[in-house]
Amino acid sequence: MACACSPKTERCIESLIAVFQKYAGKDGYNYTLSKTEFLSFMNTELATFTKYQKDPSVLDRMMKKLDTNSDGQLDFSEFLNLIGGLAMACHDSFLKAVSSQKRT
Amino acid sequence: MACACSPKTERCIESLIAVFQKYAGKDGYNYTLSKTEFLSFMNTELATFTKYQKDPSVLDRMMKKLDTNSDGQLDFSEFLNLIGGLAMACHDSFLKAVSSQKRT
Repeated sequence: MACACSPKTERCIESLIAVFQKYAGKDGYNYTLSKTEFLSFMNTELATFTKYQKDPSVLDRMMKKLDTNSDGQLDFSEFLNLIGGLAMACHDSFLKAVSSQKRT
Repeated sequence: MACACSPKTERCIESLIAVFQKYAGKDGYNYTLSKTEFLSFMNTELATFTKYQKDPSVLDRMMKKLDTNSDGQLDFSEFLNLIGGLAMACHDSFLKAVSSQKRT
């Protein structure tokens, strides 16, 4: 197990696994996120992304899009696609901001 | 920017972007990891994975496999594939350990 002295990236990988297991273990099968567990995860762990989102169907559509094998659950690989997609979106915003600063 | 009071997952996404930018900014083009930057990242940030790795060609082969567009650099999307791959490997080991515990 990574300790506080471990490099940040190792702690981050461990933290992604731990948070997935925490929410996946709330109900039903322990190793996947049900719709309820996914909503709980999104509204707690990604609150900055969801707090301005007034339309609940957005999260429904996200769950459907992430659930690539359409079993109504998100496994860890599908969950990582969510994290990767959000990280890419944040990184792209950063690159756009840098590029627009350079133009001014 | 996420603060210490932000949920762990948001801090983790921010940390992945920050660590990529830190190593990508060491030499040459600031928004990709060169081979030297990749090795520096691996040996510092993923030291637990690399410290028992005596064969340097393993990291060379990893870089080639991750560099899907073969430009000799890793962009953020290719970097995320590395993080996702390691997280999947750790999670799979966990599932195997749980399953073997259940059998005993």
